[in-house]
Amino acid sequence: MSRSDVSEFPQAPTWSKSEKAIARAVFDGALRREVLELMKEAKRRANQMQQPSQLWDLQYYLTERRKEVDRKYDYRYSQLTNVFGRLLYEKRISVDELSGLGENKLKPIRSLAELLTKDAAGLI
Amino acid sequence: MSRSDVSEFPQAPTWSKSEKAIARAVFDGALRREVLELMKEAKRRANQMQQPSQLWDLQYYLTERRKEVDRKYDYRYSQLTNVFGRLLYEKRISVDELSGLGENKLKPIRSLAELLTKDAAGLI
Repeated sequence: MSRSDVSEFPQAPTWSKSEKAIARAVFDGALRREVLELMKEAKRRANQMQQPSQLWDLQYYLTERRKEVDRKYDYRYSQLTNVFGRLLYEKRISVDELSGLGENKLKPIRSLAELLTKDAAGLI
Repeated sequence: MSRSDVSEFPQAPTWSKSEKAIARAVFDGALRREVLELMKEAKRRANQMQQPSQLWDLQYYLTERRKEVDRKYDYRYSQLTNVFGRLLYEKRISVDELSGLGENKLKPIRSLAELLTKDAAGLI
């Protein structure tokens, strides 16, 4: 499961020390909020279980969410603008939180968020 | 994931129609009770979650239990005496429930239950 060190995006911008600190905080905050949200939903589903089969529904639900979260929260610098672009689109983070990042990061982040918004609206 | 039709136990006894009906009821009853027990435990664990990481502890717990249950409740006639032997050892079923099965099934069931009991007690 090791990831290739060869960047898939040769033009991906480099991150300064201060940008890395901002990225880490925004990333960790969004991840924590999302997992706490899932935890709340898991408690709700657990408490509603009545039939034996619903136990495996919960197991499947959690396994799928775990895969999703692992895919989504990919802290490789080559992937971070994509990660933040998606989180911005999902309103899990705000542009304000990202202030301090260079325009070479903010631009692709905003672009992806806009693209996903248009896509979800059926405009592309 | 298809299972070989070639019996791993050539001496495994054949099951009559009435024995199959008893086996099915005992098997389903034990499975249902065990899953309901796990459901109760899952609710308890879900309600105790506080830290984000505990969500993945619950996911892992349920995934392991699911694998365990799938392995344990193997309704192939070639495996049923082993399955019931283990369930008898775990006190999930009683000898009374099995009445109606031929001695050629009851004997290996009791033998395995006794063997597992001795093993757990460190006697073998």
